[in-house]
Amino acid sequence: MQKRVGQYLMDAISAVGVDKVFGVPGDFNLTFLDDIIHRDDMDWVGNTNELNASYAADGYARMKGISAMVTTFGVGELSAVNGIAGAYAERVPVIAITGAPTREVEKAGKYVHHSLGEGTFDDYRKMYKHITTAQGYITPENAQVEIPRLIDAALNEKRPVHMHLPIDVAAQKIEVEKPYCYVTPEKQDVSSYIKRIEDKLKTAKKPLIIAGHEINSFDLHEALEQFVNQTHIPVAQLSLGKGAFNEQNDYYMGIYDGEISDEPIKSYVNGSDVILNIGAKLTDSATAGFSYQFNLDDVIMINHHNFKVDALHAEEVRLTDLLEGLLEMDYVSDVNYPHYHVSEHKEIELIDHPLTQSTYFKLMQSFIKPKDIILAEQGTSFFGAYDLALYKENKFIGQPLWGSIGYTMPATLGTQIADKQRRNLLLIGDGSLQLTVQALSTMIREGLKPVIFVVNNDGYTVERKIHGETASYNDINMWDYKMLPFVFGMKEDDVKIHNVTTSIELEKTLKDIDDTPNIMHFVEVHMDVHDAPAKLNEIAKAFANQNN
Amino acid sequence: MQKRVGQYLMDAISAVGVDKVFGVPGDFNLTFLDDIIHRDDMDWVGNTNELNASYAADGYARMKGISAMVTTFGVGELSAVNGIAGAYAERVPVIAITGAPTREVEKAGKYVHHSLGEGTFDDYRKMYKHITTAQGYITPENAQVEIPRLIDAALNEKRPVHMHLPIDVAAQKIEVEKPYCYVTPEKQDVSSYIKRIEDKLKTAKKPLIIAGHEINSFDLHEALEQFVNQTHIPVAQLSLGKGAFNEQNDYYMGIYDGEISDEPIKSYVNGSDVILNIGAKLTDSATAGFSYQFNLDDVIMINHHNFKVDALHAEEVRLTDLLEGLLEMDYVSDVNYPHYHVSEHKEIELIDHPLTQSTYFKLMQSFIKPKDIILAEQGTSFFGAYDLALYKENKFIGQPLWGSIGYTMPATLGTQIADKQRRNLLLIGDGSLQLTVQALSTMIREGLKPVIFVVNNDGYTVERKIHGETASYNDINMWDYKMLPFVFGMKEDDVKIHNVTTSIELEKTLKDIDDTPNIMHFVEVHMDVHDAPAKLNEIAKAFANQNN
Repeated sequence: MQKRVGQYLMDAISAVGVDKVFGVPGDFNLTFLDDIIHRDDMDWVGNTNELNASYAADGYARMKGISAMVTTFGVGELSAVNGIAGAYAERVPVIAITGAPTREVEKAGKYVHHSLGEGTFDDYRKMYKHITTAQGYITPENAQVEIPRLIDAALNEKRPVHMHLPIDVAAQKIEVEKPYCYVTPEKQDVSSYIKRIEDKLKTAKKPLIIAGHEINSFDLHEALEQFVNQTHIPVAQLSLGKGAFNEQNDYYMGIYDGEISDEPIKSYVNGSDVILNIGAKLTDSATAGFSYQFNLDDVIMINHHNFKVDALHAEEVRLTDLLEGLLEMDYVSDVNYPHYHVSEHKEIELIDHPLTQSTYFKLMQSFIKPKDIILAEQGTSFFGAYDLALYKENKFIGQPLWGSIGYTMPATLGTQIADKQRRNLLLIGDGSLQLTVQALSTMIREGLKPVIFVVNNDGYTVERKIHGETASYNDINMWDYKMLPFVFGMKEDDVKIHNVTTSIELEKTLKDIDDTPNIMHFVEVHMDVHDAPAKLNEIAKAFANQNN
Repeated sequence: MQKRVGQYLMDAISAVGVDKVFGVPGDFNLTFLDDIIHRDDMDWVGNTNELNASYAADGYARMKGISAMVTTFGVGELSAVNGIAGAYAERVPVIAITGAPTREVEKAGKYVHHSLGEGTFDDYRKMYKHITTAQGYITPENAQVEIPRLIDAALNEKRPVHMHLPIDVAAQKIEVEKPYCYVTPEKQDVSSYIKRIEDKLKTAKKPLIIAGHEINSFDLHEALEQFVNQTHIPVAQLSLGKGAFNEQNDYYMGIYDGEISDEPIKSYVNGSDVILNIGAKLTDSATAGFSYQFNLDDVIMINHHNFKVDALHAEEVRLTDLLEGLLEMDYVSDVNYPHYHVSEHKEIELIDHPLTQSTYFKLMQSFIKPKDIILAEQGTSFFGAYDLALYKENKFIGQPLWGSIGYTMPATLGTQIADKQRRNLLLIGDGSLQLTVQALSTMIREGLKPVIFVVNNDGYTVERKIHGETASYNDINMWDYKMLPFVFGMKEDDVKIHNVTTSIELEKTLKDIDDTPNIMHFVEVHMDVHDAPAKLNEIAKAFANQNN
C-alpha cells in the first residue's frame, strides 16, 4: 500500500498509543502537519512555544508511556533542547521530530532562513546527539528501517529520540511493506545475576530495597511490589522517582533522603548491609548532597544497563528482565523494620495568621484523593510535596534530577490532556511560573481543568536558601497572578479564582475545590518570602557546600 | 593585584562597554552574580527565562556592540541556545557565560542536579560549539588567557562565544597581571584585492553596491557611505541588514528583494554587470526565494572572511580592512540610476472601516521620528516594515535570516535598556508575542517605556500564507492583550492602552503617543486574519515552492 512517509510515521506513532502530538508550526513542517490533523486517531496540540511543547510532551509520556512532538528546523528544535535533555536525564521517551528544508535545498547548501547562513544543515542534529538516545535522518529509502529503529529505541531505553525529517521526504510516497508494530526485545538470561543477588541477600542482616525513578519509566510497579511481597524486604524510596513503590504496602518504610531522613528509617537504611538499589539513582538532590551513610560496597545496582554486584558489572542487561528474574528468586526475609506511618494532621490549628509552608503541606495531605495526579515544581513545592503520603494509584511528577524550573506548568498540560478524567493538582511557585506561564493558555484552549496552586512568595525561594537570601537577583517582578486565566481567554464560568493568605482560607478553598469539581481552580497562595519546607532548608545547605 | 576570577571577568566585560548583564540565577552561578551586583558600573537584569535573556542580550548587543549573559549549567544554558544560534547566524556578539558545578564535582563524576545523571559534564559545552565562534573552559590558571581570547573573538567575529565557568573557579583569587583591554587586530594588506575590485569596476556599465547586515554588525556605516560618496556607485540594500546604508543618501536606490522589488530598482539591479556585495548575504527571505536575475559571476563578495572576485577567493580577510581599503580606491562612476523616493502618503483616506495592513504601514511611515529604534517581528510586521523609508539615524532591527518568532519582545527589552532616551517602536503580532510575552514583565520592572504595537489577527498569518490558510495548526488562543501590562505589574499611570480597529483610530492613537511621550504605550491593532503586506504574500509563495 502506498503512503506518504509522513503518514507512515504517524501510523507508527499511533501504533504505540500516542493520540496527541505537541509542537509549534513552522514552514518546514506545515505540509507534514496535515498528515496529523487529518487523522481521526490523533489531535494536534499547538503550543505557545517549543520549550513548553517539550515539557508537555514529557508530561504526556509520563502518563501514556511515550509521546511525540514536532518543531521546525533550527529555531524550533533548538528551543526544545532543554525539555528534551530533561526527558533524557529522567528517562522519559519523547519522539522529537524536526521538519527540515528539502534534501535539494540542503544539497545545494542554500542560505535559507533558520539555517546558520553558512550552507550547513547538520549542526542542530549533532547537538541533539548529546541529549537523545538515538537519532536519524529520515529518507524515503530508509523510512521503514529508521522510523521503527527510533521508536523501538525510545521505548526500549525510555529516552527521547530525534528524527530529522526533510519536508519533501514527509510528502513522498512509499510502498509500505508492513505497518510498524513494537515488539518487546527478546528476554535476556539473567539467572546468574539473580543467583548472585540471592547469595548476597542470604548474608544480609538488614536487607533493604531502595526504589527509584526507573520503576516509573519502565512501568514496573506491579513487578516490584510482587517481589517485595514475596521476599518481605522493606522498601525505602527516593524523592527522585517517588511513586515507584506503593506507599500503602506493609513493607514500605518511607522516603530516604540521606542525613535529613526521618528516624527511624534513617537508622535502618544507614545500617543496612545489603541494599538492592532498584531503578534508583543516588543524586545530590535525592540524598541531601550524597549524605548517605551506608557502604556503597553493600549496594547491588539493579538499574537499566547498569547491573553491579561486588566486582561484577554488566551493562547490557535490561531492568525489565532483571525484575522478572527477581520474581524467581528463592529468598524470604524476616527482618524487623520501621513501618511507614502517615503523620497525623488532626492537630492543625486553623488560624487567621499568615499561612506557613508547614501548614500548607499538612492541609494538602488531607486534600489528596486516591487517583490524583500531583505535579510538584522544583522549588518549595517539590521539596515540601515529596514527603506527602500517597495512595497506591496516585501519580507524583517532579523533575529533581534535571531540575528545570518552569517544567511543571506545561507538564500539567501534557498529563491532564493524556487523561482528562483524573484530577491533576499542580503545585508551583511564582518564580517558576513566570518562565512558562503561557502554557496556561493552551490548557484553557484545550478545555482542561486542573487545580493549580501558585505560591506567591516573591521570588526564587529555593535560590535564597542556597545563596543570596536577600540579593536582588533572587527577586522577581510582582504579577497579578489571579488575572492570568482571564488574560489567556478563560471564561468567568469555567474557572474559580481563590486568594489564600491563612490556613482558614486554605481549608475553605480546598473544600470549595472538592465541592465544584468540573471547573478549573486557580489558587494564589501567599506565604512569607523566607518560609520554606524544612527539608528544603537542609538540602539547600548541602547544595551551597557542594559549590565551595 | 589579587582579584577573584569572577571579578577579573566582569572587569573585562565592563572594559568593552557592557553595563547590563542579562540572565537567570541558578545555584551554580549565584556567588558569581555577587561579583556583578556589587559593581557600580554594571546592573544585573534578571530575565523571566533564559531564551528571553538571550534575545535581550542580542538586542542590547545590536545597540552597544557587545553584550553578556549568565545562565546556569544545563537547564539554563540549553534554554538559551536558540537565541545564541540566532546571534551567530546574524553576527551579533554575545558573551554567554554558564555557571557550572565545581571542578571537584566534575572530577568525581557526581550525579548532580542539572547533569544528565551519567557523570559527564561536557555535553552542553559540546553543543555550544556549533553555535558560537569560540568556547572556553575557564580555570584560575588560564583565565587571563582564555577570557581575553574569547572576548576578542566575539568582537573580531561579531559572533557569540561561550564560557564554561565552574563556580569554584569564579570565586578563586588570582594575581591580575594587567586588566583586559581590547586591541584592534593588526591591519591586513588588502591592496591587491582592492586593485582587483577596481579593475573589475572599470569594466562596469551598471555598477552596483548591495549592502547588508555585516555593515550593521561591524558598525561600518560611515565608511560605506564615504565610499559611496567618493565613487558614486548606487546602492541597493537587503531586508537582511536594513539600516546598513543611509536611505537619505542620494546614491540610495531602495530595497532589493529579487523578483518582488519595485521598479525601477529591480531592472537596475538585475541588469547590473558588476556588483559589490558588501556585508550582504543573498538569503531566501531577502531575495524572495533566490529570485535575483543578475549573474553571480558578476558579484564581488566583500564579506567578513569571504572575499571573492572571479576565481580569487580569500577567507582570512576581514571586512573592516576591506572597507578601509576601498576608501583608497580610485574610481568614480557616472552611471544613471533610479533614485529612491519615499511613497507619498497624503492620499490615505482615514475611514471608519476595518484597518488594513497596507494603511497600517502607510501611517507608520509618517509616525517614525529620526532617532527611533524600530524592531519588527518576523511575520507581517517585518515584511511590511522593511519597506519603510528610514532616516539616517534610525535603527531597524529584525531577524530575517534566523527568523525565530518571539524574538523582538525580549530584544526590545535589550535595545531599550541599552539606551533609555531613544524611542523604541516594537511592531509584533499576536502569534509571536505569545512565545515570549513575559519579557514585557521585565520591561515593566526596569521602568522601560517602549511603544508596543501588537497586531491581533488571530494566528500565524505568515504561516497561513505559506501553507494551511485555514488549518487549525495556524490558529492560536485569543488573549485579552490589553490586560497584559497590568497582569505584569504595570501601574495605571505609567501606561496608556490603545485599541485600534480603523485607520481613524490608528491616526488618533499615533498622535496621542506623540503627545504623551514619557509613558509606555501598548497598542492592540485589529486586522483581518488573512490580510498581509503585499510582499509577504509573494515571499510566502516562494517559501512554499522551496519546500516542494
